[in-house]
Amino acid sequence: MKNRDNKLKQQFGEIIRKLRLDSGLSQEEFAHQCGLHRTYIGSIERGEKNVTLETAYKIAKTLDTPLSHLLLLLEHENDIHE
Amino acid sequence: MKNRDNKLKQQFGEIIRKLRLDSGLSQEEFAHQCGLHRTYIGSIERGEKNVTLETAYKIAKTLDTPLSHLLLLLEHENDIHE
Repeated sequence: MKNRDNKLKQQFGEIIRKLRLDSGLSQEEFAHQCGLHRTYIGSIERGEKNVTLETAYKIAKTLDTPLSHLLLLLEHENDIHE
Repeated sequence: MKNRDNKLKQQFGEIIRKLRLDSGLSQEEFAHQCGLHRTYIGSIERGEKNVTLETAYKIAKTLDTPLSHLLLLLEHENDIHE
């Protein structure tokens, strides 16, 4: 379970980083739009934080993507829900 | 933002409770299968907890439903990602 949890955090972070870069936002700009601190976004992107649904929704909203879609990308990539 | 967050927690809890009851599991059995405490499941179902993605995945796995699907139900019901 521990490895799967770490994988989840890491892969969530990677998807967030990719979509943030695709949107052309710096970590600082992105964090500001999310209403979160830049260092917190950095730690999420590095897979160090196990975010809450509330925070995940803020991030998804800033990326203009439903959270369900972000998680679908993650699930398809890794079959971690299996 | 505060009201939306409360709504999110409440509606996530309601969906979990509904699907748990549909699956015929008591809170205690469900909690055991999730690897969580019964009182914690109770507070999630009452919308009192802002769960982490990790916990949400455990719950979805026990319900045999991808987490993306649970969140899709929630988003369709409430358009909370808009």
